[in-house]
Amino acid sequence: MSSTAPHTLYYSPGAASLVVHWLLIELDEAYELRLVDTKSGEQKSPEYLALNPNGVVPTLVIDNEPQFEAAALVQTLADRRPEAGLAPALDDPRRGAHTQWMFHLANSVQPLFRIWWYPHEVAGEAQAEAARAHVAPRIEAAWERLDAHLAANGPHLLGDRMSAADFYLLMLMRWSRNMPRPATEWPHLATLARTLTARPSFRTLYEREGLTEWP
Amino acid sequence: MSSTAPHTLYYSPGAASLVVHWLLIELDEAYELRLVDTKSGEQKSPEYLALNPNGVVPTLVIDNEPQFEAAALVQTLADRRPEAGLAPALDDPRRGAHTQWMFHLANSVQPLFRIWWYPHEVAGEAQAEAARAHVAPRIEAAWERLDAHLAANGPHLLGDRMSAADFYLLMLMRWSRNMPRPATEWPHLATLARTLTARPSFRTLYEREGLTEWP
Ligand SMILES: N[C@@H](CCC(=O)N[C@@H](CS)C(=O)NCC(=O)O)C(=O)O
Ligand SMILES: N[C@@H](CCC(=O)N[C@@H](CS)C(=O)NCC(=O)O)C(=O)O
Repeated sequence: MSSTAPHTLYYSPGAASLVVHWLLIELDEAYELRLVDTKSGEQKSPEYLALNPNGVVPTLVIDNEPQFEAAALVQTLADRRPEAGLAPALDDPRRGAHTQWMFHLANSVQPLFRIWWYPHEVAGEAQAEAARAHVAPRIEAAWERLDAHLAANGPHLLGDRMSAADFYLLMLMRWSRNMPRPATEWPHLATLARTLTARPSFRTLYEREGLTEWP
Repeated sequence: MSSTAPHTLYYSPGAASLVVHWLLIELDEAYELRLVDTKSGEQKSPEYLALNPNGVVPTLVIDNEPQFEAAALVQTLADRRPEAGLAPALDDPRRGAHTQWMFHLANSVQPLFRIWWYPHEVAGEAQAEAARAHVAPRIEAAWERLDAHLAANGPHLLGDRMSAADFYLLMLMRWSRNMPRPATEWPHLATLARTLTARPSFRTLYEREGLTEWP
């Protein structure tokens, strides 16, 4: 299934494209990077909207087809390379748990960060601080539950086995680095962060996106 | 892969459990229903939190293991029954598109409905009306994009082929029925709704959950 044509990743440093970029490196896929200048609104240009009508990064062109949604791209990249073992096979008893965690992060955690990063979207500019104040404890409650899961069933989301869902979780944890209580205040989340950020792929990712801070 | 032990679905009529229930019927799986009285807060009881620490419906007990996240359960049920054809196989060229739409609905559409149904969560009770006023156009923009996709590539999300993602989309469309602009105002979404709600499984679902309204 792995294609020989290089993928093209439309990204912005540290944005939701980060986990897709990380997986491309981890899986040693051939890819090209295209920087999207989100500060100047390039993601809303007609050219970009033709690739991704949602007007957000990431977009990944796979086999000449633009695809969107960071979590979907993570799942798709992992599924295309079964030998890498980042997503359990369909007949693996752990497949259901992996699917659960991927959708949990996508549905119950990442959207809270959309509020944290774009607080004016939810009830207007005047309520931006109120929106942030309301979402911070909800994000903390998510860390609390994830940490409890790792305490009982860790050290990874699937126990002994590292999976694509761990990489996705790491990106979301990174987004909390300047919050009142960053995710690394939870001990089992901190341990997982140490394990994953020690990988050579993380160093390469940081170099290519020009990132320095965290963890 | 299909197990002979019946599944147990913890549900509330019309809630996020609806699409899981619908798939159980559509796939002719053996299941038991357990009503969760969300009005009295039963989803926050210690007994329920032991099954699903997120304190929400649905939870589906599969092979004696409680699993959560509606979208994940839809994907898992479809993947366990490949002969039903509701999720493309991993080596099917349409797998990536199906994964994209599942995560798009989970990450970019369903969370907007969390705001619509629980508007006090985002910036407090005093801002509930403002939150609703801000989220309605974002939901409408999602319908606009999905309708454009169906116009160009429909009649289903995967074109000619009906898939689990269509059922999930239908549940979200149903949630818009009392909004200023319900999803069925968009013509290609309305056509998809007619196709899917004409299925015998939809009638059975409505009978079992005691629903009448919509479409
Ligand atoms: N559901 C999308 C959300 C992506 C998203 O919100 N990306 C942000 C950066 S982290 C973005 O492009 N923001 C620019 C904008 O909203 O205009 C995904 O997960 O891929
Ligand atoms: N991410 C969850 C969200 C489910 C959800 O929000 N369920 C609502 C009903 S539609 C619920 O249980 N609400 C009760 C509560 O939040 O206390 C999923 O998709 O399964």
